[in-house]
Amino acid sequence: MKDLPNYLENHRERMLEELFELLRIPSVSADPAYKNDVAKAAEVVAEHLKSAGCDGVTIFPTEGHPIVYGEKIIDPALPTVLVYGHYDVQPADPIELWESPPFTPVIKKTELHPEGAIFARGACDDKGQMFMHIKAVEWMIQSGNLPCNVKLMIEGEEEVGSDHLETFVAQNKSKLACDVILISDTGMIANDVPSITTGLRGLSYVEVSVTGPNRDLHSGLYGGAVANPINALCEMIAALKDENQHITIPGFYDKVEVVSVEERAAMAQAPFDLDAYQKALNIASVRGEKGYTTNERNSIRPTLDVNGIWGGYTGEGAKTVIASTAYAKISMRLVPHQDWHEITQLFRDYFTSLAPEGTTVTVKPHHGGIPYVMPTNHPGYQAAHKAYEHTFGVAPIPQRSGGSIPIVALFEQELGCKSVLMGFGLDSDAIHSPNEHYGVWNYFKGIETIPYFYQYFVEASAT
Amino acid sequence: MKDLPNYLENHRERMLEELFELLRIPSVSADPAYKNDVAKAAEVVAEHLKSAGCDGVTIFPTEGHPIVYGEKIIDPALPTVLVYGHYDVQPADPIELWESPPFTPVIKKTELHPEGAIFARGACDDKGQMFMHIKAVEWMIQSGNLPCNVKLMIEGEEEVGSDHLETFVAQNKSKLACDVILISDTGMIANDVPSITTGLRGLSYVEVSVTGPNRDLHSGLYGGAVANPINALCEMIAALKDENQHITIPGFYDKVEVVSVEERAAMAQAPFDLDAYQKALNIASVRGEKGYTTNERNSIRPTLDVNGIWGGYTGEGAKTVIASTAYAKISMRLVPHQDWHEITQLFRDYFTSLAPEGTTVTVKPHHGGIPYVMPTNHPGYQAAHKAYEHTFGVAPIPQRSGGSIPIVALFEQELGCKSVLMGFGLDSDAIHSPNEHYGVWNYFKGIETIPYFYQYFVEASAT
Repeated sequence: MKDLPNYLENHRERMLEELFELLRIPSVSADPAYKNDVAKAAEVVAEHLKSAGCDGVTIFPTEGHPIVYGEKIIDPALPTVLVYGHYDVQPADPIELWESPPFTPVIKKTELHPEGAIFARGACDDKGQMFMHIKAVEWMIQSGNLPCNVKLMIEGEEEVGSDHLETFVAQNKSKLACDVILISDTGMIANDVPSITTGLRGLSYVEVSVTGPNRDLHSGLYGGAVANPINALCEMIAALKDENQHITIPGFYDKVEVVSVEERAAMAQAPFDLDAYQKALNIASVRGEKGYTTNERNSIRPTLDVNGIWGGYTGEGAKTVIASTAYAKISMRLVPHQDWHEITQLFRDYFTSLAPEGTTVTVKPHHGGIPYVMPTNHPGYQAAHKAYEHTFGVAPIPQRSGGSIPIVALFEQELGCKSVLMGFGLDSDAIHSPNEHYGVWNYFKGIETIPYFYQYFVEASAT
Repeated sequence: MKDLPNYLENHRERMLEELFELLRIPSVSADPAYKNDVAKAAEVVAEHLKSAGCDGVTIFPTEGHPIVYGEKIIDPALPTVLVYGHYDVQPADPIELWESPPFTPVIKKTELHPEGAIFARGACDDKGQMFMHIKAVEWMIQSGNLPCNVKLMIEGEEEVGSDHLETFVAQNKSKLACDVILISDTGMIANDVPSITTGLRGLSYVEVSVTGPNRDLHSGLYGGAVANPINALCEMIAALKDENQHITIPGFYDKVEVVSVEERAAMAQAPFDLDAYQKALNIASVRGEKGYTTNERNSIRPTLDVNGIWGGYTGEGAKTVIASTAYAKISMRLVPHQDWHEITQLFRDYFTSLAPEGTTVTVKPHHGGIPYVMPTNHPGYQAAHKAYEHTFGVAPIPQRSGGSIPIVALFEQELGCKSVLMGFGLDSDAIHSPNEHYGVWNYFKGIETIPYFYQYFVEASAT
């Protein structure tokens, strides 16, 4: 392992340029216009798996975007690590808020990244973090430091719900058989405060519509006389929370994990500066469910957010119209024990019941995901803990995240394996936002840390 | 006057083709992309005023779109009619709902227009109705039947608030001096139930924005912890009305004209079929202010409607984002004695006060208009009444409209003149909607009726 820093130093420019090449491909999975680019990204990933030294590299087509797979089996008697990542990215809009083009990666210094950060859509989520694993595997294979078997499965539909991965995993259980799953698609607290994500929220994502009259109407002639679908949609959305920002859907909280007073006290020890948080977002105040702190609100509590809304005239100037239909995309983050299918149904029943007279409502489920918790005494967690401690020089903090990686709970169900969430991004890296970036330091620190995970995991498995 | 039917018969094709030529010009005043088309429409109108026989035809530039003027002064001692109309049109979107292209006029039969209707944006509002006046003036001048002086002022900013007409009128009071103003920019009940609009609602149109965090955020990491601007906007819009659909803005109803029980009883005599109304709009129920009928809700009562809303991710698929800012366009229809400047200020104060913690709000007034009432004993109203009675064979019904023509109140203020609102369109003509149309019968019936107005007005003025 002592050669690793030298290798990284000698191959630094190549490892950056290879990532840049991948970032230049606009592999936006949500938008059919980018279908060919998503396919191109899959091909580039496959090429890198091959050149890293993987065997059996295959691009598996699905009814959506393809899944890239490669492996290196050195001894079936040794443990097997399954790496999961994704090469698809979020849409780049609002494009006008990017300071440099989203698919033209550039390195710029930031306050938190004095060595520079790579600015591009997907730099952190997840091309940059996924690519660290390919580069770490490359070094381990090329230098003879791979201590166990490794399988890599890189998908192209994470940002749209991993619809076809589920079938793929279910149909390839023996191919994917492993002892632990390793994923870098989360963040850590700070470059000098590493942390490992031990919990993820689940998700229910729906699209709703409210229709009133069968055509757009003149608001002067019909205003006040018929239900206005936009006003109705606003009323219905407003009714989904009470004055304490508690979600009003009947049954919504019934199965929510009750986190103990002790665990909440432990969580409260994590470093958090509310003033700095508010200042970074330029808000005068936070807003959330009464009775919980900010860190609790975005980790151990379920939430409901409108992610998009549209209807009527949205162009320049004024148009006095009553729209026929108004639309919204709404997502709910779920916590352990909430079932997303059940929550989606509860939402549908309640939302539909809120429709004012003279309107009709549709609720279309987009996708969902099960919440997840990783016990800190798991050998995979322990191996990750030691790896961070070795390369960062400080013990990582276990932390629950507010985000969702729906596939993690699925892996547990289908493959009977826990996932270790070794994230190296920062909250300020603006994933899903304009000007997403990923620290150059974080990229190489990740590549350096990953091989230690393998070493410690093999040691833990042997005992 | 006896030659009029023959003239219309002989010139029918030309009078249709001339209107079609005007309808082919996409003179959308709200969208700067169509600025040249708006200017082109002004030129075409000016050419028609000249060929009708008008003198002093001039295109007056403004800081916005131009105003076209022409006149025929036959004797300064005689009364003067000032015709007002507009050549600009509403935006055509949603374009995909048009069954034929909005700027390619075609004649198609409909249930209410068995002789055919002209389908095009502006066919009814207001190119078709405005053009009837030019054609009626053409006949009166060419045939020696013009019984008094006539001035025509056709503007290009009616659909965006007539911002520059106000200054033009104020600066040209003597040029525009008249005894009555004649406008066809409203509707009538049915082809066999003619009606004259005696009241118009005023308008306050605003655009609002709600901003939370300074950038788009990942809804997993920040959901539940910071104010979501879309949720906040929905809450604020919902709070603008109570459960009785009564507007909650403090002071909003303070100056609302109280219509007498007698007048409400008279209004209730107008033919109205609620079932047919609901069926035509494909709604199971109407919705409006408690305590008022549908016809009262859209005429003698003020209303508030969201005309457009947007924010967050509105593309295909799913994006788990918390938008930095959400937007809405909101209009309020006002009734006599409500001042739109005052109402706009009341709205701004109240809406801003509704902003949840962690959000900031902007309210940008777009434009407004004063409500208007025309007394039925006015000589102009009486002349219109007789003209309809003559050509339709049945007395027209006085009717209050829910729409707004802001300029009408301004004319009264600046020129000291009442406006006669001789509308020939039907409610079902889909103005401001996809598939706007105007009956061919209505177009020619208008051209036939207008000269009688002049004749009866001169008679009424002479007594």
